[in-house]
Amino acid sequence: MADTPLLDILNSPEDLRSLSQDKLPQVCEDIRKFLIDSLSSNPGHFASSMGAVELTVALHYVFNTPYDRIVWDVGHQAYGHKLLTGRREQFEFNRKFGGLCGFPNPKESEYDTFAAGHASNSISAALGMAVASEMKNESPRRNVVAVIGDASIGGGLAFEGINNAANTKNNLLIILNDNNMSIDSNVGSLNSYLGKITTSKGYNRLRYKAYSSLKRHNLISERLRGKVLRFNNSIKSLLSNKQNIFEGLNVRYFGPFDGHDLNRLIKVLREIKDMEGPRILHICTTKGKGYAPAERDPASWHAPGKFNPQTGERYVSTNQNEPLKYQDVFGKTMVELAQKNDKIVGITAAMPSGTSMSILQEEMPHRVFDVGISEGHAVTFAGGLAKDGMRPYCAIYSSFLQRAYDHIIHDVALLKLPVTFCIDRAGLVGEDGATHHGALDLSYLRSIPGMIVAAPRNEHWLRNLLYTSQSDNFGPFAIRYPRGAGKEINWKNDMQAVEIGRGERISEGNNVVVLSIGTIADEVSKAIEKAKSEDDISIAHYDMVFLKPIDELLLSEVASKECPILTVEDGTIKGGLYSAVIEWLNDHGYKSRVYPIGIPDEFVTQGTISELYHYCGMDCESIYQTILKANKENK
Amino acid sequence: MADTPLLDILNSPEDLRSLSQDKLPQVCEDIRKFLIDSLSSNPGHFASSMGAVELTVALHYVFNTPYDRIVWDVGHQAYGHKLLTGRREQFEFNRKFGGLCGFPNPKESEYDTFAAGHASNSISAALGMAVASEMKNESPRRNVVAVIGDASIGGGLAFEGINNAANTKNNLLIILNDNNMSIDSNVGSLNSYLGKITTSKGYNRLRYKAYSSLKRHNLISERLRGKVLRFNNSIKSLLSNKQNIFEGLNVRYFGPFDGHDLNRLIKVLREIKDMEGPRILHICTTKGKGYAPAERDPASWHAPGKFNPQTGERYVSTNQNEPLKYQDVFGKTMVELAQKNDKIVGITAAMPSGTSMSILQEEMPHRVFDVGISEGHAVTFAGGLAKDGMRPYCAIYSSFLQRAYDHIIHDVALLKLPVTFCIDRAGLVGEDGATHHGALDLSYLRSIPGMIVAAPRNEHWLRNLLYTSQSDNFGPFAIRYPRGAGKEINWKNDMQAVEIGRGERISEGNNVVVLSIGTIADEVSKAIEKAKSEDDISIAHYDMVFLKPIDELLLSEVASKECPILTVEDGTIKGGLYSAVIEWLNDHGYKSRVYPIGIPDEFVTQGTISELYHYCGMDCESIYQTILKANKENK
Repeated sequence: MADTPLLDILNSPEDLRSLSQDKLPQVCEDIRKFLIDSLSSNPGHFASSMGAVELTVALHYVFNTPYDRIVWDVGHQAYGHKLLTGRREQFEFNRKFGGLCGFPNPKESEYDTFAAGHASNSISAALGMAVASEMKNESPRRNVVAVIGDASIGGGLAFEGINNAANTKNNLLIILNDNNMSIDSNVGSLNSYLGKITTSKGYNRLRYKAYSSLKRHNLISERLRGKVLRFNNSIKSLLSNKQNIFEGLNVRYFGPFDGHDLNRLIKVLREIKDMEGPRILHICTTKGKGYAPAERDPASWHAPGKFNPQTGERYVSTNQNEPLKYQDVFGKTMVELAQKNDKIVGITAAMPSGTSMSILQEEMPHRVFDVGISEGHAVTFAGGLAKDGMRPYCAIYSSFLQRAYDHIIHDVALLKLPVTFCIDRAGLVGEDGATHHGALDLSYLRSIPGMIVAAPRNEHWLRNLLYTSQSDNFGPFAIRYPRGAGKEINWKNDMQAVEIGRGERISEGNNVVVLSIGTIADEVSKAIEKAKSEDDISIAHYDMVFLKPIDELLLSEVASKECPILTVEDGTIKGGLYSAVIEWLNDHGYKSRVYPIGIPDEFVTQGTISELYHYCGMDCESIYQTILKANKENK
Repeated sequence: MADTPLLDILNSPEDLRSLSQDKLPQVCEDIRKFLIDSLSSNPGHFASSMGAVELTVALHYVFNTPYDRIVWDVGHQAYGHKLLTGRREQFEFNRKFGGLCGFPNPKESEYDTFAAGHASNSISAALGMAVASEMKNESPRRNVVAVIGDASIGGGLAFEGINNAANTKNNLLIILNDNNMSIDSNVGSLNSYLGKITTSKGYNRLRYKAYSSLKRHNLISERLRGKVLRFNNSIKSLLSNKQNIFEGLNVRYFGPFDGHDLNRLIKVLREIKDMEGPRILHICTTKGKGYAPAERDPASWHAPGKFNPQTGERYVSTNQNEPLKYQDVFGKTMVELAQKNDKIVGITAAMPSGTSMSILQEEMPHRVFDVGISEGHAVTFAGGLAKDGMRPYCAIYSSFLQRAYDHIIHDVALLKLPVTFCIDRAGLVGEDGATHHGALDLSYLRSIPGMIVAAPRNEHWLRNLLYTSQSDNFGPFAIRYPRGAGKEINWKNDMQAVEIGRGERISEGNNVVVLSIGTIADEVSKAIEKAKSEDDISIAHYDMVFLKPIDELLLSEVASKECPILTVEDGTIKGGLYSAVIEWLNDHGYKSRVYPIGIPDEFVTQGTISELYHYCGMDCESIYQTILKANKENK
């Protein structure tokens, strides 16, 4: 265990606030030591929290938390906050089943004010709290602080929040924690704008333009040239503060300040704390600050896995005999497809490495568009590309794609445009927990007219589905696949087109039928093996492959067996495969009893995939038990 | 018929482009005459299209449509475009079943480039087209123009589009058609910013600030004072152009120009047409231009209904004996509730009059927040308000609420926050057609854990549900109701709390059971009357009221009858009431045959409600036929 004597006696922000200010650098050092030590053995999000240490300490030192509200935008940065708010000892169970949530979680602590798994929501949520406080006329005044990163602030929701901030009386403070990084590098014009106002080069260029303009119109004498072209408050305020984007939206702007200069930060926060009206404080921080390997390569150290705290060596598997992740099979397959079909373009919303769209990006940079945290734009932009003849493959995590639901409906499906949705992190994702599980996509996509919804059970099917989607114009085509490694060392099959809406019989049997979709087929296969060998039950197993259109021939074959049916899906049991199957059976007058296995109708917690499969009754053993039950009830 | 001799011979934009420029004012006049005449008897969106006449003529005159792309953002403004693109003679069937769609529709015309029923999508879609053109290296260069209003540009999606516009090579031209109105007045800081740069008062203030700042630092002599404080190009460019919000996002800005000065508009368009890179052209127009009554009151003339073209008298029913619209019952009920519960606040996303939240707004302006076209922010903001003790009622049209799907899940339901979603325009909406039908809400809300989903069958139930939602903390609570008039003259019952998840038996019977949800119960009642009297069938009818949680006691009672069941819902049959009922029956081992009646799994066209009910098999006669069928098959 790291030696963190000062942190060890801080059991709440009250304790922190009782310290004299000169002790705070030691607190920061202890937090960093603690994080390095803890995360080296229990992996989590590392670099963002390291960069936000001084900010975290300053906020809890200056503000009266939890009465004052801190709303973290995406919880990556909030580990220090967890340590200072009474959760130091539980931190070894961070991201574990039954332990702490990896993101701020109001169910866990009153210091966690809001959900923080999806980016860009902090300003709107904090504005709600600030307005609530005004309406309740609370005394003492309650301060509300939103802490948002430079990537998150580029999302449309953050813009909507800022655009509404000045509409009503409130004292919202927005802190823009600018580390010039999202998980990958940042994109978008707002971001280059932020770069401009934080580099002297940008200032200089603007100042020179201002000078030239004034000079050209004879508004300024040559004598004053130096003053204008030197760093100058009036010009600075004219160019960066008074007329910057935020001030244009009626939010007072302060900054940029060094986010690691703790004393300065505390001073600035104290100065602007009691001002009236919405304000934005722009601070610059270094992602991974205080740990050299992470500072050098912050993208890799976003969530580095286990590492050696002394050497900075990351324990990354390089075993050639382990199967690739599904995302890597996707990325590599995209390169093959794009080489042969020049209409294919890749789109990612700030997740090139998370989705492995980076593989295509490296090979063909001009064929990939990283639109930043803008899932809605990603999909509508794909719609525009498809309308004029391109074949966009839009790779977005399942739970984040919820942000683009209307865009899928109105800007793609309504026009039957050939956009392929490559839905990564579908189903239960494990340690990231409730905000990140891709539980709803099968259900929310199935209700959209004309959508094709498919899920491969292995790498070969993933490749065939990706290939199929561009082999003809089928309209919108969703392919969902899980987080993590696949199972085939020889993943690289010769791709071929598959028939839309056609599933596959995996094994034959007559007592019980199991219909599954996606990679959960593996759990089913194990359960069937066990039931066959131990209980001598004859079980048929079909991979539906397509949720929509559903394979009616297959279902006819299944229904005619007149035996109980299990449906198994790594998705909610409300509206997905289970619903589709019983709808078809009912529509065609069949009476088979169907046993649903899937994610229950609740927000499922974090844990390992196998813990969660067990919790949800989706693991091999639970499926086996359900087979036994179905077989017994049928007799 | 209006006398429009020049318009009458224009059968395509080619014809328009063959005219000499001095003929164009006559074309504009003819378009206005035509619109006034046509819309006075066949109602539609009036004021927006009147304001965009010169812009429409200029665009088709300068650009080589349809090779060049015009992407209209929200089709309200595109009637002139329809007239000039070969649809003049069909325009009498505008918004009619089998006729023209009221919005641009690519299925209808190659001049309609994209779907335009939901706001703020034009920039992203047009950017996709512009990038596609670049990637295909097309020759001649294809121009792509997005035409977006000053309300739509405040949506997060539009911001995401602009923020990505400069990221890659393209020649996108964005035209900001600024009439300082959405359907209601505009809100948001961006909007007040637009006001600033278009009023000399704004300019003056900024110019004075600039002068003071320069003066204070001795950078400018008193002698030059007048020059600075007068309208001046260099300062103008410094303050509004070079450093404005759009230029901050790397999009070149031109404007503002008078959008009714046709010759100027054509000149400017020609000048900037062939420039490289993304550009924004800001024009100011008057909503309702050319028709005095509409210019005076553009909000009422957004969609005025029938009117007398000569006098401007609108044929608005003032019959006190007609039932109110559901939205008005909602609005009036909100006033009653807010008077008694000071935690209640109302939220609308640019639709105060459309949702009748305006009624509460007039009574208690400080209790209502109109956040502009920002459905996502509306919901997350509501989450923040609810988290700190308020009771937000968020009124949004069903199909627009799709934009806030993730926000409902992540920012409200995950935290079990007591936000009431008042979902107007649920189910089929009639003449607005495919983009506006609220077909999916029952399905997309049912899959969200912990959501309460309810639909009243009449005004009394609507009021009781609204009352119930604030009577205790039930978490997220959705209440969906249709467009148009209710049926009760005496709508104002004494409100009382109803039991969550409890339906109601309306009539008793033993041959067939009908389960309905929402106001479609009326069609069911008529069908049952007919089947009872003409065919002597004994039919039970239950109003489920709640889709989620579903009434299990009621379903037990129904299932034990062992007779066929009809489910009737004004929503998609994929994932809504039908799915919920058969899931429950299957889970509990019942084998009743269920006959689903609802919106089919397709994008349904426009028409009157009764035409569409008939088309979807949801009208009284279709339900009657299904009852007969179910009764017969059961024998």
